[in-house]
Amino acid sequence: MTVDTRFYAPLGALTLEEIAGRIGATLVGDTNLTISGIASAANAKAAEVAFLEGDGKLAPSLSPHLTAVICNEVMRAFVPAGIATFVTAFPRYAHSQLAKALFQPRHLMESGQGNVSESAQIHSNAVIQPGAVIGSGAAIGEAAVIGANAVIGPGVQIGRNTNIGANSSIHCALIGDNVTILAGARIGETGFGVLVGPQGAEDAPHYGRVIIQDHATIGANSCIDRGVFEDTIIGERTKIDNLCQIAHNVVLGRGVIVAAFGGISGSVSVGDGSMLGGRVGIADHVQVGERVSLAASAGLFRNVESGETWGGTPAKPIRQWMREVAWLQKQANPKKTS
Amino acid sequence: MTVDTRFYAPLGALTLEEIAGRIGATLVGDTNLTISGIASAANAKAAEVAFLEGDGKLAPSLSPHLTAVICNEVMRAFVPAGIATFVTAFPRYAHSQLAKALFQPRHLMESGQGNVSESAQIHSNAVIQPGAVIGSGAAIGEAAVIGANAVIGPGVQIGRNTNIGANSSIHCALIGDNVTILAGARIGETGFGVLVGPQGAEDAPHYGRVIIQDHATIGANSCIDRGVFEDTIIGERTKIDNLCQIAHNVVLGRGVIVAAFGGISGSVSVGDGSMLGGRVGIADHVQVGERVSLAASAGLFRNVESGETWGGTPAKPIRQWMREVAWLQKQANPKKTS
Amino acid sequence: MTVDTRFYAPLGALTLEEIAGRIGATLVGDTNLTISGIASAANAKAAEVAFLEGDGKLAPSLSPHLTAVICNEVMRAFVPAGIATFVTAFPRYAHSQLAKALFQPRHLMESGQGNVSESAQIHSNAVIQPGAVIGSGAAIGEAAVIGANAVIGPGVQIGRNTNIGANSSIHCALIGDNVTILAGARIGETGFGVLVGPQGAEDAPHYGRVIIQDHATIGANSCIDRGVFEDTIIGERTKIDNLCQIAHNVVLGRGVIVAAFGGISGSVSVGDGSMLGGRVGIADHVQVGERVSLAASAGLFRNVESGETWGGTPAKPIRQWMREVAWLQKQANPKKTS
Repeated sequence: MTVDTRFYAPLGALTLEEIAGRIGATLVGDTNLTISGIASAANAKAAEVAFLEGDGKLAPSLSPHLTAVICNEVMRAFVPAGIATFVTAFPRYAHSQLAKALFQPRHLMESGQGNVSESAQIHSNAVIQPGAVIGSGAAIGEAAVIGANAVIGPGVQIGRNTNIGANSSIHCALIGDNVTILAGARIGETGFGVLVGPQGAEDAPHYGRVIIQDHATIGANSCIDRGVFEDTIIGERTKIDNLCQIAHNVVLGRGVIVAAFGGISGSVSVGDGSMLGGRVGIADHVQVGERVSLAASAGLFRNVESGETWGGTPAKPIRQWMREVAWLQKQANPKKTS
Repeated sequence: MTVDTRFYAPLGALTLEEIAGRIGATLVGDTNLTISGIASAANAKAAEVAFLEGDGKLAPSLSPHLTAVICNEVMRAFVPAGIATFVTAFPRYAHSQLAKALFQPRHLMESGQGNVSESAQIHSNAVIQPGAVIGSGAAIGEAAVIGANAVIGPGVQIGRNTNIGANSSIHCALIGDNVTILAGARIGETGFGVLVGPQGAEDAPHYGRVIIQDHATIGANSCIDRGVFEDTIIGERTKIDNLCQIAHNVVLGRGVIVAAFGGISGSVSVGDGSMLGGRVGIADHVQVGERVSLAASAGLFRNVESGETWGGTPAKPIRQWMREVAWLQKQANPKKTS
Repeated sequence: MTVDTRFYAPLGALTLEEIAGRIGATLVGDTNLTISGIASAANAKAAEVAFLEGDGKLAPSLSPHLTAVICNEVMRAFVPAGIATFVTAFPRYAHSQLAKALFQPRHLMESGQGNVSESAQIHSNAVIQPGAVIGSGAAIGEAAVIGANAVIGPGVQIGRNTNIGANSSIHCALIGDNVTILAGARIGETGFGVLVGPQGAEDAPHYGRVIIQDHATIGANSCIDRGVFEDTIIGERTKIDNLCQIAHNVVLGRGVIVAAFGGISGSVSVGDGSMLGGRVGIADHVQVGERVSLAASAGLFRNVESGETWGGTPAKPIRQWMREVAWLQKQANPKKTS
């Protein structure tokens, strides 16, 4: 997805030659090409730079519009001919350095000129409670309530009849109508991604957004991270309890239920109408179908087909899990069980 | 319990006839009766409307003072003669619509007129730190400290020598003396209840309170939801660690200990002196006796008698659980175990 | 460690005689000795009082500089000759009462005189966003960004290029350069320690600090408690995800990774480069070596040597755990497994 300049200020385009100098990488290709954006390799468009990292064993997904890529020596074999290529030992790190040269998150640029920015558009019927901070270019819809000491970052859009709880914070996000976000929720923080640079562990910067659709509810002190390059999406009428963690690039369908302490790792998708009991965890990239039920405390590491019910850690079909629990209890306590 | 008008502003009484029109339900009974309140069917008083939802297999608990009820076709058989009855396919949804017509949460009505409301009563020895927001009609006791950027909602009562942490928020709650609430705690948010309406999932509105008794401590970023119609109660000297979730209508006794990530579901009761290790979860409506110990990571789905110690998921008596753990280890690793 | 007076205001020294009166304990020793500090028995220096509590079966670790101790009758046997000794039935409670008489946490003393204290030292290039509160004597480094409605407590030091998220709070802490603390994180709250006094459960007061070293990252709504008498330490480039709990006196090495819902109990140490999957819990005082991997959902109750990989609850070497999981599945589902 192209970076949304409502949330990330463009700092100016760079030529490939300038980029090669900044990231200290060898360039193969037309040095006069101009770059204005960043993306994943699977979704890159013209004038955007992507990166490829890996051990060379798995072919990466590549956008047909790929024009420039930063990669390591072994991944170079996957880059089609004619595409400008930077070679470096730390491709994702180099890409993150380039990204920081091209864009700056606007919410780190706001300074202390009054609680409500003069450039924010606030509907005359909206209620802004004491201490709430509204960033530049943000928009607050009709009959929305922004709770006391909440923070609405620059460029954030809040729909009609939407309630934003006290002390919550929302950045890099588009929030629909009739949404409820309870106190202390953290929407649009940078996700957890650790990349390796020459000095060791570095945070992967995030340039995506959070989209929360109409009638969704987010519990108190829950966290929904923004995507890396794409969006994190919470579907219509999806209901999330307190103290849940929804990681970057997650897509939850419509009417999904997530009970307290639900933990959904990066790039997971969950289909419409699925129900997650308390303290359910899902490992990254797992795909969960529609109307799936996951029992409380389940730890899911595999894809689940629509309509199934799973439980346990590692999670398996619920009847299989219950059979194991019952069998173990019987075998280990042969005489009688309390 | 009758709705506490310190937290929920009454919007005016309605006749049964007016209600029938608003919620689109068929009314059987005296249309001139006037209704000013809402309640659960078990606790309704005169002039309050309750609801009954279910498949008709289980007889509901009914208050002897029940005067009007919203129910579906199959639950109608349980309504005693002479009680005004609305029949609809979505009783709980209709009840929630009626509730919104009768009461408005005051904390959604506050607007931006200064951080400390002129109608708040603040003891001359209390300390209000910078950025703290104190709602209308709130009361802050002697030597209480309200931390920086904390939010004390309208009508909330804070006792003597009580410390409220930075960035925490408290709504619809009565807080005793010598209580400590650490930074970022969320007291009195609406609980997690999803009801079914004609358009799909809807949030169940909450009209109860949170009561925190003297000398209790609530950890950083922990959440205690207010009750649906009754109160969520935290007993005297009960100590709750960081990042815990205490759901609506929970009643914790005196001197209960809840370690980090404790998750207590709706309507659970825990007796005096019980101790919950880290990451213990308790399913809704479970009753835990006094002086019960639950081992770290336990997931409890059944009632536990006073004095017992349980562990595991699903939790069972600790010796039984430990026998199973040891037996499995021995059987699966026959030669030697590390 | 000597109490850091940047965070805890000294209220004046006391003689042993004065202390005996205040805590109602019998004193054996020179009543004219003057006491100005508090410490643990293992680390006490001259002019500091420590305490000893226990059943007398285990010899405590004692500082060679111990000059005064509060203990119960059975622990008295471990106190070397010549050391001033207070005897009471509640030694830790008496010590906490003495501590409160000697020091007051400065963040409870701040009052409402503007959002940014005049005595704070703020670099001219630092960005202080709207609503942020900066306490007396705090220091904010070059190019640091303090997010909207964040709270920086008195005496707190924030390094260069460090980002403090919206609505987060930091007390009793020294934060390095290039650190990222995301929205809603709670740094330096008092830890969870319950001691027994004559009236029942009491909170153990905390007089330590939190130290966060350069390039560390702390996730949204995560909590890092300050130490009891020593420091809680987060090493360089250590990366902590959202909604994690790091308890008092924990020491994490360099480059440690802690995924979401990680829960690290009091006094745990984790060596450099160790990786904790999502929802890993570690029991108090456990020592984890370097480059250890703990699988998601592991619940660890024992020390782990460097380089090992463990999983399960209770955690054990990963191959042993996986063998048990596979064996149970096979035995309990004899015909076929899905």
